[in-house]
Amino acid sequence: MTKKDIVTELKPLFYPRAVSIVGASKSLLKIGSMTLMSIVVGQFEGGIYPVNRKGGKILGLKTYTDFKSLPGDTDLLVVCVPASSVAQVMEDGIDAGIGAAVIISSGFSEVGKEGKKLEDEVVRIANNAGVRFVGPNCMGICSSPVKLYPLMNMMMPRPGGTSFVSQSGTLGTVNMLVASNHGIGFNKFVSSGNEADLTAEDLLEYFAKDEDTELVLSFIEGLRDGRRFFEISKEATKRKPFIMLKAGATEEGARAANSHTGSLAGSYLINSIALKQAGVLKASNGTEMLELLKAFSLLPIPKGKRVGIVTPGGGAGVLAADACGKMGLEVPMLSEGLIEEMNKYLPSFWSHGNPVDITASGGIGGSDGADFSALTDSLELLLKSDEIDCAICMGVSFSDMMDSMLSNFPENLKNMLGSFTKAIEPIEKKFNDQLIVLKKKYGKPIVLMGIHESIPKSAMELEENGIILYSEPDLAAFALSKMAWYGDYLKQTTV
Amino acid sequence: MTKKDIVTELKPLFYPRAVSIVGASKSLLKIGSMTLMSIVVGQFEGGIYPVNRKGGKILGLKTYTDFKSLPGDTDLLVVCVPASSVAQVMEDGIDAGIGAAVIISSGFSEVGKEGKKLEDEVVRIANNAGVRFVGPNCMGICSSPVKLYPLMNMMMPRPGGTSFVSQSGTLGTVNMLVASNHGIGFNKFVSSGNEADLTAEDLLEYFAKDEDTELVLSFIEGLRDGRRFFEISKEATKRKPFIMLKAGATEEGARAANSHTGSLAGSYLINSIALKQAGVLKASNGTEMLELLKAFSLLPIPKGKRVGIVTPGGGAGVLAADACGKMGLEVPMLSEGLIEEMNKYLPSFWSHGNPVDITASGGIGGSDGADFSALTDSLELLLKSDEIDCAICMGVSFSDMMDSMLSNFPENLKNMLGSFTKAIEPIEKKFNDQLIVLKKKYGKPIVLMGIHESIPKSAMELEENGIILYSEPDLAAFALSKMAWYGDYLKQTTV
Repeated sequence: MTKKDIVTELKPLFYPRAVSIVGASKSLLKIGSMTLMSIVVGQFEGGIYPVNRKGGKILGLKTYTDFKSLPGDTDLLVVCVPASSVAQVMEDGIDAGIGAAVIISSGFSEVGKEGKKLEDEVVRIANNAGVRFVGPNCMGICSSPVKLYPLMNMMMPRPGGTSFVSQSGTLGTVNMLVASNHGIGFNKFVSSGNEADLTAEDLLEYFAKDEDTELVLSFIEGLRDGRRFFEISKEATKRKPFIMLKAGATEEGARAANSHTGSLAGSYLINSIALKQAGVLKASNGTEMLELLKAFSLLPIPKGKRVGIVTPGGGAGVLAADACGKMGLEVPMLSEGLIEEMNKYLPSFWSHGNPVDITASGGIGGSDGADFSALTDSLELLLKSDEIDCAICMGVSFSDMMDSMLSNFPENLKNMLGSFTKAIEPIEKKFNDQLIVLKKKYGKPIVLMGIHESIPKSAMELEENGIILYSEPDLAAFALSKMAWYGDYLKQTTV
Repeated sequence: MTKKDIVTELKPLFYPRAVSIVGASKSLLKIGSMTLMSIVVGQFEGGIYPVNRKGGKILGLKTYTDFKSLPGDTDLLVVCVPASSVAQVMEDGIDAGIGAAVIISSGFSEVGKEGKKLEDEVVRIANNAGVRFVGPNCMGICSSPVKLYPLMNMMMPRPGGTSFVSQSGTLGTVNMLVASNHGIGFNKFVSSGNEADLTAEDLLEYFAKDEDTELVLSFIEGLRDGRRFFEISKEATKRKPFIMLKAGATEEGARAANSHTGSLAGSYLINSIALKQAGVLKASNGTEMLELLKAFSLLPIPKGKRVGIVTPGGGAGVLAADACGKMGLEVPMLSEGLIEEMNKYLPSFWSHGNPVDITASGGIGGSDGADFSALTDSLELLLKSDEIDCAICMGVSFSDMMDSMLSNFPENLKNMLGSFTKAIEPIEKKFNDQLIVLKKKYGKPIVLMGIHESIPKSAMELEENGIILYSEPDLAAFALSKMAWYGDYLKQTTV
């Protein structure tokens, strides 16, 4: 059998005309039923054929007692039956003409020798037929171009440009959901499970070549072929960012990874140096992964690593400068000319340097009441100059914090102070609107830092306009430093 | 003048019988009015005397045209007038018998030479009268034992046992608010401002000696007397934890700190080694500060650094093990005996090691529907054994995640899936209740790790029962490692 191009080979997996699913029943809390529900809720554009020996209807859909009675061709088979029945289901599906499968069922190599035998048998059947499959022991896949979401936990993400392969189904799906809440959309997703057939390397190669994929994300415990991963990513990162969360980086983690996926996390060439050479953006935990994803999805790539900091409070400015220092960014002194320019707009007691600290008196609670124009004026002067490449500005969410505080207060005080915070909202709105104008006008990354841990009401609108709010200056600096590094990497590789 | 003991000296600051405030007016968005509103809303138990030349009522309170017309003694003076008038107000207050003052007004040494002159004059007046004061250029103070909250941004925290001195007013107050949302209460707070009279060292000495203070928190950019800080904390940390966020740790941050508070961040002996010798728990950013505060407020101190990990997903187990490895915690192998004991309760395919991975099939979506008893059973066996000192368990907030996902869904799908998540809620509730039982029964720290960034509905109840949910395994491991370190420090210093 000649090897097909991976893009052609995986077309039935990601762009099927119809899907058959085996293992759904009337008991809604079971894996098969949840997976079917996820396909239905996702509004898959092609045919949906539940195969169930008992017949009848499930979730309002007609079921088929066997593959022979299907009303048409089915490209993709989704399997949720117990492990011992999977081989037979695969054979039946192959007879009916499937081109690819997703095996969600568990109880294979991950549970020991007996399971490994069952898994080998499934691999043999699929290989003989030239059918590629995902799993077993996985949570499912997504393909937003055809609205296909067979996910056993139903955690459908927003559609978008990021494709994601995850060696952990839970971490993968939950992170997609969190990212979706930040406006990040996903093109394709694969929970790769035991990788009995399709490996993370295969899927990364597909995503690298897939024209619908703009950014590639991965959660990796261990690779079977580190050299192949290196070659794929070195080539692909010139065209699209590769973000990778590598688990098993310590002795304790590597031991756990070996137990989880049988992978030898430390035994392949995927150390930090190799990843850097290949242009891969490494995250060391889930928070970093999400922040990189947000940054590379929403921000323009900065031309360099010189950061301008704007703050209405000195303490936050110091923490932001510390964060930049830790992450290898520069917080340059400002030129005489720029300082003189700033003097025209700022109160006399501003810091006369970078961080640009207008002090609390220059912002809310100033003697003329609340106003944030000194923040946006100084931010504009920084962005306009050729002295900085990106900016960190203290975010403004006083009204959200007040709301949060008031939630613990007695009713009469709530009413009294509620009207007060209402007065601040339009001023905050004006500030945020002005940020969006500045972002569009100058095309340099603007990130906001907050202290408040929950997402303010305004964060979503800001993020949709390409401005990210970080709960912690360290995260803002982390994201900017990785972007500056990638910008530099691109310059070097394309020379 | 003989030097009084600091506890006696600061009694009028933290336990005044009455407070007079100068600078409040009918314009509610001004600093003085917000500070007065904060005192009123906080329901201060003593007399509240606004002094305003124009007379009339402010916020329903009778005002006094001068200090001579006050109805009784006033121990504390709160000053919010422009810098040029502060010296006169202090003199008037001293004539009226005040024992301490909080000067919120800005425009002093932080704005240059002219301001420094005004500040020196205020110091001279106060010193001559033996009156101690906080500020100027600060955001105010709190003292929950007398319900006193003169804060210019009104961000009153919950009452409790933590006392906090912050060299940044904004960071201090916002962090108190975030901590309050996690059930952490504050005893006293001082935004120390320019520290023209009372310094962070003075306030830390007071908190060290104050019997109402159980835990001491500080945000420090620079200390005037590092040696004194070292002596105070070395003595106090034997009795109560000292948590410190030290800003200005990099060249960039130190330069910013110098500009902010004029402090020479690097010039005193407050490096990491000295802090460790003094038993101080150092945080390097706001997130770490909050996590340490939560951990030391809510968790028992573990006897050692051996961590048991329980998870329904291998990926999260690997990340948790990695996090422990990074933070210097141990993830010990389990004894044969304990593994055999586990076999009695767990599905055959569990990981047979630490992390205890019961796999997704052992938890939600298992063939028998959703149930988390395998998680709590294995957690109990770990806690009962003498092989581990503390536990990290994957938290369960599926219903919250579903709710979050559904918020983007069309109405009909919301209704369909909403009833589904409702079915899971009682199972999650049972899981959480069982955790609380285990916490009480075994007295070892239990922390949960989540992936979801927002606080689940159940987190508050769990935290009130001494179980913390971390959004990131790295944070869970960070907090546990610091607790284990402090436990060890206490053993060594009390031998």
